[in-house]
Amino acid sequence: MLNLFIGSIGACSLASHIALEEADADYKVTRLDLTKGDQKTADYLKINPKARVPALVTDKGVITENPAILMYIAQTHPKAKLAPLEDAFALAQVNSFNNYLCSTVHPAHAHKMRGYRWTDDPAVIEALKIKVPQNMTDCFVTIQNEFLKGPWVMGENFSIADIYLYTIATWLEGDGADKSKLLRISEHRTRVEQRPAVKKVRATYA
Amino acid sequence: MLNLFIGSIGACSLASHIALEEADADYKVTRLDLTKGDQKTADYLKINPKARVPALVTDKGVITENPAILMYIAQTHPKAKLAPLEDAFALAQVNSFNNYLCSTVHPAHAHKMRGYRWTDDPAVIEALKIKVPQNMTDCFVTIQNEFLKGPWVMGENFSIADIYLYTIATWLEGDGADKSKLLRISEHRTRVEQRPAVKKVRATYA
Repeated sequence: MLNLFIGSIGACSLASHIALEEADADYKVTRLDLTKGDQKTADYLKINPKARVPALVTDKGVITENPAILMYIAQTHPKAKLAPLEDAFALAQVNSFNNYLCSTVHPAHAHKMRGYRWTDDPAVIEALKIKVPQNMTDCFVTIQNEFLKGPWVMGENFSIADIYLYTIATWLEGDGADKSKLLRISEHRTRVEQRPAVKKVRATYA
Repeated sequence: MLNLFIGSIGACSLASHIALEEADADYKVTRLDLTKGDQKTADYLKINPKARVPALVTDKGVITENPAILMYIAQTHPKAKLAPLEDAFALAQVNSFNNYLCSTVHPAHAHKMRGYRWTDDPAVIEALKIKVPQNMTDCFVTIQNEFLKGPWVMGENFSIADIYLYTIATWLEGDGADKSKLLRISEHRTRVEQRPAVKKVRATYA
């Protein structure tokens, strides 16, 4: 059975959790309290030396990083049709979208609460919070205007790109983004939240 | 013919460029001068609204983000054996490795020269340079100790993970990383630079 290590409902591991449920996978989750440092214990560092969630433990070994886990779930559960596995170009579009989320959007968000990653100066950590609302708004305006085809990210077919986008979009209020500019993002979020698998996963964090 | 938009030899687009050469792909490159803002022209923004390199123009459309381009090249040029395409778990390991590079290592590096992405305050931009040597050293120690199996990242088989690792490893001197701790990374870099495709690509930037 797959074992997914997750944080709270506000952690990015929510994406991998939803994907497992959408795929109807045989899985369980193990929840870490990131505020208590569960991710830094010796036992967990054996699973993920990077001290982050998500980490998916499979019978072959551990997979880390959301885009990699999402693609693995899609590939190993093809009946769920969570990615265009037979079309290299369409698959590259999904990968590109998810890579933008992990490489640009997630770091833009992280400067609000995790500035200590890039500076040891408390005043600089505070200063890094200032531009987060603008950066998150700008990233999501780009997504909305250039990449979200509608109704789903890739058009007519729901995919792992929708799951990951949804997860990060739940951070927008907390990050102070200007949601008045992000109507299509809000509509997408509502659409994702109406899915039974998403409702079921969210309820497990209550 | 594929058309890859690249920056200088010091830009991360070097990875996609090397992959095309390793794959013996039918391609050309179009070089942008990022210091002059070529990536912000109206014409280029039609290709990549994110104003970054690399961008790979195919006959089906544009692919952006290194990990997505690298996987696309591997998938569409299977004879080059640049990724374990038939093994979902092994492929996930490659994706995970490349996702770590794009989501954690590249942003760690970017705080040296691109701090303006996260703050408008010149003093904060300066302050963000301080921790770059430590962060880059720490990231590469983790890679060296936990993920670089040897002789290649994935073990016996050269892959797109080696190409992307090599590209980012060429930044270590400029970032002030402690290379005395990174002997296996240096050996890997030398190994990659001995490959004919890598020599050929590097020569085109001279």
